[in-house]
Parts: sequence; C-alpha cells; structure tokens
Amino acid sequence: MLEELKQVVLEANLQLPKYRLVTFTWGNVSGIDRERGLVVIKPSGVEYDKMTKDDMVVVDLEGNVVEGNLKPSSDTPTHLVLYQSFPYIGGIVHTHSPWATIWAQAGKGIPALGTTHADYFYGEIPCTRKMTEAEIKGAYELETGKVIVETFSFLDPMQMPGVLVHGHGPFAWGNDPYNAVHNAVVLEEVAKMAARTCHLNPNVQPIAQSLLDRHYLRKHGANAYYGQ
Amino acid sequence: MLEELKQVVLEANLQLPKYRLVTFTWGNVSGIDRERGLVVIKPSGVEYDKMTKDDMVVVDLEGNVVEGNLKPSSDTPTHLVLYQSFPYIGGIVHTHSPWATIWAQAGKGIPALGTTHADYFYGEIPCTRKMTEAEIKGAYELETGKVIVETFSFLDPMQMPGVLVHGHGPFAWGNDPYNAVHNAVVLEEVAKMAARTCHLNPNVQPIAQSLLDRHYLRKHGANAYYGQ
Amino acid sequence: MLEELKQVVLEANLQLPKYRLVTFTWGNVSGIDRERGLVVIKPSGVEYDKMTKDDMVVVDLEGNVVEGNLKPSSDTPTHLVLYQSFPYIGGIVHTHSPWATIWAQAGKGIPALGTTHADYFYGEIPCTRKMTEAEIKGAYELETGKVIVETFSFLDPMQMPGVLVHGHGPFAWGNDPYNAVHNAVVLEEVAKMAARTCHLNPNVQPIAQSLLDRHYLRKHGANAYYGQ
Amino acid sequence: MLEELKQVVLEANLQLPKYRLVTFTWGNVSGIDRERGLVVIKPSGVEYDKMTKDDMVVVDLEGNVVEGNLKPSSDTPTHLVLYQSFPYIGGIVHTHSPWATIWAQAGKGIPALGTTHADYFYGEIPCTRKMTEAEIKGAYELETGKVIVETFSFLDPMQMPGVLVHGHGPFAWGNDPYNAVHNAVVLEEVAKMAARTCHLNPNVQPIAQSLLDRHYLRKHGANAYYGQ
Repeated sequence: MLEELKQVVLEANLQLPKYRLVTFTWGNVSGIDRERGLVVIKPSGVEYDKMTKDDMVVVDLEGNVVEGNLKPSSDTPTHLVLYQSFPYIGGIVHTHSPWATIWAQAGKGIPALGTTHADYFYGEIPCTRKMTEAEIKGAYELETGKVIVETFSFLDPMQMPGVLVHGHGPFAWGNDPYNAVHNAVVLEEVAKMAARTCHLNPNVQPIAQSLLDRHYLRKHGANAYYGQ
Repeated sequence: MLEELKQVVLEANLQLPKYRLVTFTWGNVSGIDRERGLVVIKPSGVEYDKMTKDDMVVVDLEGNVVEGNLKPSSDTPTHLVLYQSFPYIGGIVHTHSPWATIWAQAGKGIPALGTTHADYFYGEIPCTRKMTEAEIKGAYELETGKVIVETFSFLDPMQMPGVLVHGHGPFAWGNDPYNAVHNAVVLEEVAKMAARTCHLNPNVQPIAQSLLDRHYLRKHGANAYYGQ
Repeated sequence: MLEELKQVVLEANLQLPKYRLVTFTWGNVSGIDRERGLVVIKPSGVEYDKMTKDDMVVVDLEGNVVEGNLKPSSDTPTHLVLYQSFPYIGGIVHTHSPWATIWAQAGKGIPALGTTHADYFYGEIPCTRKMTEAEIKGAYELETGKVIVETFSFLDPMQMPGVLVHGHGPFAWGNDPYNAVHNAVVLEEVAKMAARTCHLNPNVQPIAQSLLDRHYLRKHGANAYYGQ
Repeated sequence: MLEELKQVVLEANLQLPKYRLVTFTWGNVSGIDRERGLVVIKPSGVEYDKMTKDDMVVVDLEGNVVEGNLKPSSDTPTHLVLYQSFPYIGGIVHTHSPWATIWAQAGKGIPALGTTHADYFYGEIPCTRKMTEAEIKGAYELETGKVIVETFSFLDPMQMPGVLVHGHGPFAWGNDPYNAVHNAVVLEEVAKMAARTCHLNPNVQPIAQSLLDRHYLRKHGANAYYGQ
C-alpha cells in the first residue's frame, strides 16, 4: 500500500545525507496521505545507504503500525502531533543539522537578517520554550510535538515552515516530503548565515518589515512572480 | 540568435554550483552583446542541473523578452540598470554566497585587509545604504540597481568589480560572464578571510595604500606583470 | 594470528580519513582480543592509502610486539593503559580531529548542551589536567594513559566513551574498533556544535539532567527503545 | 634538463588544489638543485589543471630564466632569497591558504597551543613586520624575501619551516618540494585550530616548553622515535 508515497519518503530521506544535513542516522522524513489518514516514515536507526522502499513504515495517526517489518522512527509521535495540528502540511523532516542545532542549543530563535531568510520564512524562526521535567519524563516525543504546536499559537505553519526545539534541534515541513527537505536545507543555510552575521555585527537588527514582505510575497502567495 | 553568448552564459551559470556559490537556484549570471544592445540571462527558478542553452532568455535593455520560452530571472531589472550605467562591463553575477552575504546582512563593507583582496578589488568593497520603504514597495529590482549605481558615485566599477546590497547579498561583474564569476569567487573568499581576520584581531586596520597599489597594479593596468 | 581482528582494525583505521577525522597519518585505531590478552594496532607513521591488513601490529598488554614487521603506533602505551584500566572496552581511537582538539587546546571539557551530546555521552566530556614536567619527560605515552584513567576516577568509561587530553587531542573508545570510530565521529560533531553554541550564546547552560537522562537512556541501557 | 625535478615540482604544485590550499592560481611551489644552483618553479598565472612538466621554468639563483617558454611565478625573487639564505631547504611553497592568511592579515604569529603544532613547528610560527613603503615600492618580491630572512635572525628555518608575511600570507618550506607542501598543509591545519582555540578561550597560553620539546623531538632530530 502507498507504494508511491513510500518511494517519495525513501528518496526524501536519502536527500538528507546528500545535502549534509545528517551524520549517521540522525534524521528522518515522513509523508502523509491525508485522504487515508496514513503516514509513511523512516524506520528507527537504519543506515541510509541500506534503506529500501520496503523498509518504510506505515502508521496511522494514533501511531499504530499498519504495515512494515521495522519499528518506526522513535520521533514518530512528534510527527503525528504536527500532522494533526497543522492540517495543510504534507511532509516533515527532523535532523540535527549543525547550524540549526546551535540555535536550538543556544535557546534562541533565528532573526530575519536578510532576504535569503525572507524568501522562505516570514519572520523570526522560533525556538520553543524548554520542556518541563514532567514533559521530559512523560510521553517525551508526543510532548515535543505539543510544545512545537504551542509555539505556533500565533504563527501560521505554512508561512513559517520550521522550528527549533530548545536544546534539541530543528523540525521543518512543507507541502510534501521533498518540499520539507528543501525547507530544512534553507533553514540550515539561514542558520549558518545568521550566526556568522551576529559574530560580525553583534548589534545587527532584523530587516525592515517592507523588505521581509517584498521577498516573502514575491515567492509565495497570490501575487508571487518568482519562478516559471 | 546570440548562440555563442547563450553558451557562455549557460556555462558561467553552471560554474556557480561548481564553486559552491549557490544553494538550489539562488543565483544568476548574465552577459551582454554591447553592439546589439541585448542581454542573455538565466531563466527564473530553473534548477542548474536541468538547464540547457535554449533555456537562456534574451532581453533588450528595457527588459523586453526578445527570445526565449521562459521568464527571465526576477533580478533582470537590476542587471539591466548595471549594464546601462557601467558601460565597460560584459557580465554580471548575483548570488547569495554565504560569506559575502553575511557582510551584506551586517551592513558593512569589506575592508582591504590583505593582498588577496588587493589583487582584485582596489579598496574596500562597498555595501549599499538600506533601501527606503518607497524603493522596496516600488519597482524593487530596478531600485536595487539604482542603489548600487548610487554607491559607485565616486568609484570606478572596473577597479571595484563587486558590491554588497544591504540586507541582501553580493553582485559581481567583469569583462565577460566568466570573468564576472571569477570575481564572485574571489569576493566570497575575501569575505571569508576578512570576517575571520576581524574575529582574530578586532582592531585590525586595512593594509597600507602602497601595498594596495602594488598588488592591484601588478595584476591590472598598463604596467601589470602578473601572468603570461 | 588474529586475522579477523586485523581486518577490523584495518577497516576502522581507514574510516578515519573517510570521516575526515585525520590529516595525513595523525590518528590510530586499535582493537583487543580480551581472551588472549592481545591488541592489534596501526603501525607508526604509515599512510592510510597504502596500509594493508598485514601491516597491523600485534602487541601484548606489556607492549611487546608479538607479530608484525613494522613498529606499532607511538601512542601504543596509551592504548594499553586504557585497555588495562577499562575492562569492558574493545576498541580505541586517537585522532587530532580539529574541533575536539580545540577543546583540548583550550583546556576545557565539552558541556552537554543538547540532545545530540546526550544521545552518546552521559554528561560533560572531560578534559584531563595538564601533565607535569616529570610525566612529560618520563614515559610520556604511558603517563598520558594514566592521566586519562585518573580523570575517570568518578566516571564510567562505558557511559563516557571519550576524553580530551589537555593541550593534545581526543581519545574515544567503544565495544569494538568500529564503535570506537563511531564515537570519535560523534565527539567531533558534538565538539563543533558546542563551540559554535558558546559563540552564539556565551551564557549557555548545560541541558537539564532529566533531558540528559531521557536521551542517553533511550539509546543505552536496559530500557533503550531507539533502533531496531 | 632537470627532468626529474620538473616532475617533482609539477606534482607538488598539483597537490595544492588537492589539499585545498589554493583558489584558482593563487600559489606556487619551487624546488632547487643545490649542486647546479638551479631552481625549478611554476609559471605565472597558469591554471593547475592545464599545467604540464614542460611548463615548469628553470631559473638560476640570480633569477635569469635558463630554460622554459613561460614567465616564472611573479614570486620567484622571494623564493630565490630564501634559497640563498636558508642553505638546507630544498623546496618552497607560497599560498594564500585561508586560515594561515587570516593570521598574516591579523599581523599575529601563531602560538604553539597544542601537540599538533609541536609535532612540526618548534615554537610560535612568526609573522613578519610590516614592509616599509620603500620596500613595497622598490623590488617588492625581493624585499619580501629579505623581510622573511630578517624575521629568522634568531630562528632556525629547519625547526620552523614556515612564516606569515604581514598582510599577505604564508610561505612554507622543507627538504624537498613534497615536504614543503606537507608543511604548508600542517601550517593551514594548525592555523585553523589555533584561531578556533583563541575564540573558545581568549586567555589560552602556549603549551609548556617540556611538551613542545617532547613532541617536536619525538618526530625530529637524533632521538626521533615516530614513524618506521
């Protein structure tokens, strides 16, 4: 079942090492079939160069394995909370990509310091609050998803396709698994440039709202004029 | 038409990922045929590994598409202003190459801190002023070109083949599209070394004028003695 | 003798340049056969791309060469002290991998700033004290091992599979030579992210004990639930 | 003539891009035949991937071209001063390798912060004084060599096989051209780690003299015991 989505999720996972977002098995991509309410996700702890389409695991939105011989990624409950709460997203990526991760470890959101950022993320990329001891000791991966959703109380996940989990690392998403990986690559690049910009000019301020609007809206929305 | 220039512009564009100046489609190269007053430029948002010579777009200096099935780069109006204002340049590159971009995001020109810089750029590589809200909300890409030209009021674009657009990223140029890419590579390398030099010695000063003269003039001008 | 272990030690050594942990010959991996009390280690100063299985040197725990035509690594006495003192380790790696080495040169342990760290190292990765002049002028490589063991007086080497030797560089270990290299790769990645996190937020604090516990214990110990 | 040395100098030059020490043509290697008093050096401004053995230029110690159709590197006078003043060196490398260059741009010598440094350089790697306006406007490349020699008034070039020219970049040397490139690679790695160590611990001090002695002397001199 879901043979096409499995292939897409496999290929999107294989893009993670290609774009140098992961070391070893530190990352995972999933995709959702909204009509059937089923999610395809990478198996836990399997090496990228040995994964095949048939290793992909199918789970329902409650996390029950519907098909597959392997255990799904341990981060599966986080993915499921995001699919449930963000109804328009079609793919999710989690990595420990190093530049995004240092912002998560520093506990800081990534300010919009330039137009590269503005082309994809409509404002500061948020960092979640620290998780509480109860959340950590409880259903940890599920609670991780809930803290992300809490962070988006006043944010539109379609205009802000990524987040930093405090002390942990980034999640990114998109229309489909490929687009989610694309946004994860951009997040890493933006995180790198923002960190270096802050070193060069500790007093740097975010770009003007008008410049943020211009760049975000020329690539996204009804009046977009970038691309073919 | 302009088959040779199209091939040059294609190949110059393909050098951008080769020299790691671009992520995805974040960059574009153009070239001009001064006799005919026509510019060949990369199409908007097309992936580098799928581009062919026939995807290149021919526009006149007013921005009308003269030949080509695809939309030209959204940055085309910026290129055209530069060709109109800098009569001796033959090729232009725009990228978001990360080290040059952090200087643009920091809003700082790159001081001439060593002879690598002096071999190509005859002084501090300037950063434009911030664009006004009116410029951003108006004909943005055209205004970007005008702000660059304003920055060069007292600079010779042939002795300073690059600029940083505030909060955005670098433009570089040269005699032809290949030379423009060459200068964009140097700009990125110089930006990297200048940022790291400032971290190592926050009080560093630009090199002496005599050293700047010696290195710039041994590679450029009537008495150049570098190369064959 | 020990043909299988020689092959493993060879392959583990060849992973060092693959993972960019070494420049030239600056690193070595060994493995132990606990039943026979014999250690297989890389020869001294031999280039990686010319090494064969038969170049591996077999030494006993007193450092006598039991088999092999080449001199063992000059760091062999350090490896032997660790095998004698840490009875459950099966492989050891020493490199001058650049990010781990800067922590050693700075004389600082690497604090646990995120979950990547916590997935492998159960707390701050320690840095040894400086060695005394007597230790340096005496049996230097043996004393290096002793200083590492001293550093682990109150640490479990199975929960902390790496260390920084002050002014020198990292050692890492594991169940077998492959696992030791795996931990050396993680140590380098964690060292990189920690250094950059400290630049971004000089006041950053280690993650909470509960988060450290959760991540370390979900991958290690009786209740581990990561992987297949 | 000197066919063997030409081949060695060619191959040593080709190692510069392989080890990522150069961008474009920014570097050159030479070698000397001490018996004949002739130096083989890279031609000026020729691309590495097009160079052949026959492009190498033979010059005498006064700089006269003895054989070759191309102009020798513009840095040839600097090489010749070094060969004349340092009678035991057999090969010289000049690059603008980025990490070494930032120390040169910062005008700072590289302190011996760890054993990687001590394995090759017996103390702080010096940075020359600034050149005077008269030196820069005069026989610049010759004067560059003289300033290096002045910097070594109280240093042994065989124990300190490299230097930083203020505001410019590194020179390194060795027994032969391959060894010179080897030392240039180490210089770059040591420069990188020292810069990052200073960021991590601005108060870091050089390693103890006893540790410097131990590491330098275990690889060099009469009692060396590293390698086969």
